Amino acid sequence: MSTEYDPARTYELDRRHVFHSWSAQAEISPMVVTRAEGSYLWDGDGNRLLDFSSQLVNTNIGHQHPAVVEAIATQARRLATVAPQHANDQRSEAARLIAERAPGDLDRVFFTNGGADADEHAARMARLVTGRPKILTRYRSYHGGTQQAINFTGDPRRFANDDGKSGTVHFFGPYLYRSAFYATTEEEECARALAHLEQVIELEGPATLAGILLEAVPGTAGIMIPPPGYLAGVRELCDRYGIMLIADEVMTGFGRTGAWFHTAAEGVVPDLLTFAKGVNSGYVPMGGVVLGPRVYEHFAHRPYPGGLTYSGHPLAAAAAVASINAMESEGIVANALRIGEQVLGPGLAALRRRHPSVGEVRGKGVFWAIELVADRETREPVAPTGGSSPVMAAATAEAKRLGMLPFVNSNRIHAVPPCTVSDAEAKEGLEILDRVLDRVDALVAEG
Amino acid sequence: MSTEYDPARTYELDRRHVFHSWSAQAEISPMVVTRAEGSYLWDGDGNRLLDFSSQLVNTNIGHQHPAVVEAIATQARRLATVAPQHANDQRSEAARLIAERAPGDLDRVFFTNGGADADEHAARMARLVTGRPKILTRYRSYHGGTQQAINFTGDPRRFANDDGKSGTVHFFGPYLYRSAFYATTEEEECARALAHLEQVIELEGPATLAGILLEAVPGTAGIMIPPPGYLAGVRELCDRYGIMLIADEVMTGFGRTGAWFHTAAEGVVPDLLTFAKGVNSGYVPMGGVVLGPRVYEHFAHRPYPGGLTYSGHPLAAAAAVASINAMESEGIVANALRIGEQVLGPGLAALRRRHPSVGEVRGKGVFWAIELVADRETREPVAPTGGSSPVMAAATAEAKRLGMLPFVNSNRIHAVPPCTVSDAEAKEGLEILDRVLDRVDALVAEG
Repeated sequence: MSTEYDPARTYELDRRHVFHSWSAQAEISPMVVTRAEGSYLWDGDGNRLLDFSSQLVNTNIGHQHPAVVEAIATQARRLATVAPQHANDQRSEAARLIAERAPGDLDRVFFTNGGADADEHAARMARLVTGRPKILTRYRSYHGGTQQAINFTGDPRRFANDDGKSGTVHFFGPYLYRSAFYATTEEEECARALAHLEQVIELEGPATLAGILLEAVPGTAGIMIPPPGYLAGVRELCDRYGIMLIADEVMTGFGRTGAWFHTAAEGVVPDLLTFAKGVNSGYVPMGGVVLGPRVYEHFAHRPYPGGLTYSGHPLAAAAAVASINAMESEGIVANALRIGEQVLGPGLAALRRRHPSVGEVRGKGVFWAIELVADRETREPVAPTGGSSPVMAAATAEAKRLGMLPFVNSNRIHAVPPCTVSDAEAKEGLEILDRVLDRVDALVAEG
Repeated sequence: MSTEYDPARTYELDRRHVFHSWSAQAEISPMVVTRAEGSYLWDGDGNRLLDFSSQLVNTNIGHQHPAVVEAIATQARRLATVAPQHANDQRSEAARLIAERAPGDLDRVFFTNGGADADEHAARMARLVTGRPKILTRYRSYHGGTQQAINFTGDPRRFANDDGKSGTVHFFGPYLYRSAFYATTEEEECARALAHLEQVIELEGPATLAGILLEAVPGTAGIMIPPPGYLAGVRELCDRYGIMLIADEVMTGFGRTGAWFHTAAEGVVPDLLTFAKGVNSGYVPMGGVVLGPRVYEHFAHRPYPGGLTYSGHPLAAAAAVASINAMESEGIVANALRIGEQVLGPGLAALRRRHPSVGEVRGKGVFWAIELVADRETREPVAPTGGSSPVMAAATAEAKRLGMLPFVNSNRIHAVPPCTVSDAEAKEGLEILDRVLDRVDALVAEG
């Protein structure tokens, strides 16, 4: 019954009535998206684009996966919504499937609408369980757009919203390419990042710290895969000082790094884990917090002071159930891992060798960053953190012209296709990136 | 493709894996909901219940409205999701339909996931546009579960989350039955409530106040329809002191009071208006902020520092388009108004005359509160604000036994069926309430 509107009308109404995220409203020209399938989408002019953005690192299962689409259609006809205080079969089953994949003893799910409110509720639980006020988070991180979540965030999008009263303290995480610790090896970076964190804990006062909230792999901030031992080291510090570890797996969860959860793959069990996006590829908005016995027991006979109308939404849950089952039966998580090891990893390394403007490539699975620099020696970025530049604007335009939708942030292009991406599609993406980087090399050489 | 699970298994998995909103987790026994249609739903034992709760005052169009269900199924097959920076036909059309119904010059929509983040973003806009820090909100109000939104909230659910640092100041609104101003008539209550608000503004310092955020009609806090002139008076105070008026129409919007928006029906134009729930009856999670030229111009050439992955979600937008069109073509908003005037209003007034335990009934459209008291003279409530009591528990159980799902809060039963409720269904609800109130009368008489 939903009507289709022509792209010109869609654009006109968008410009007249839609207020967009993170934008100067009169300075944007949104691309009309009319159709999508698998790793591709189509713009209003009929151009087909390879989706190497996964729509904000969201559509892990690709566009319009038939099993998920049909589950939504079927559940819409069965029961679209019920209130959060009731029980519903899709909600129960989604919780079971998520709990079974979550690390260690994390076995209960509090469903939210997205990643921001998941992080907000996880922090609230940590504060109430520990009775401590503050949350430690990383610089170079993103945790969501609501007021508490944007204050957790360690990127410039926080600045305009920083009220100085959020009870958040930011620390430096491992990022060898731009080390805050003057380290020269991964081992050194790891050891020094943990020593730094312990100093921050000691000097903030352990008894003031409820939780350490960190992305299992910082995503939009640059896809810095933590060096071996870092996450385990943070877990150890949390144990030593009675702090709860909150793993934000909003981007990493459900296949992105080639695992159901990055923490689980690393053998690390947080006290709280947050998810969204990949849980059902955002086909229906959903997020959540996974928690274990310690948090559950605290709220077993004492009300949890939080909630929302759409918690455990049946339609969103049905999409999650279908998505997890399809990922399992079609080997989609394993595909992401393999694509990273066999295609994207080697391919991006080759691009780095070929293009002087590429300072570093790093990543895992279908989660890769290409860091662009004006000079490999000084590592001067071609755009400032949180900003853009003529070079980055040209790279984005060139990618689109060549038939690819990239994910771009600061001086980086992220190669983040769906977990379902085929070898041929991944190679097509690498070929387009090769030509985009030719252009970047030329612009950088011109100065 | 979505599988149906038997109610026993649903319940078992719920108790093992689902963490519920606002609850002591080990002390609840959630009712399994297996099916719903129009004004009815079915529990796990096959009992049919008249839904006088609308699932947290959410399903304005009733359960499983075929036009909305089919729009979801169709859009799922066309295009489930795109990122917020792109344009999409359903998002554009939903924004147009909402903007056309919004009061005055409010003509642009920032879509969110629900009511909580809508209120958070509206307050952020007000703060950034005015450059002022504080938000005034009412005692006896609810504005959502995220950290900033729960601190706006003026009910006991705030207490465990009140950090004293949210920049919120609460004031008293009009509530003649329990007047904070010793008023005896609606006119007096209105005048005194406005005088109180002006004193609060003057003594807080107008230059410190970004916005006054208030539910167009306080909902869960008790459905206190503002007396004639109150909302206009608040608008006048906002104009006089340069404060932005933020109307929370999450419950009142899209038909609940017999109008598309309660502010519009009252001839009041806020600077910002928030919505969720009724926009698509929560069939797919969605909320949003409607804003006018003043807010738009501020962010025309300056980025708005906020956003979210699911903003303007195509599936949610398609459900909104179908729901608004169906409400329009089927006269559903007018039905809500008529049911209030011809059936629920007179019927509830008759129940008040018949049952000594009913202190007051009040409301409009399909938005009614029955306030239960131990004594009509002292107006002593049968349960404390934010709490329950044996009388209220018995009333809830009796309603369910008689085949109705009520909305219960503190010492109140809210009669909040869908806007699509028929005369016969509304009368069935009144008959059940009559018998429930017999039981309450008896319990109150026993002391």
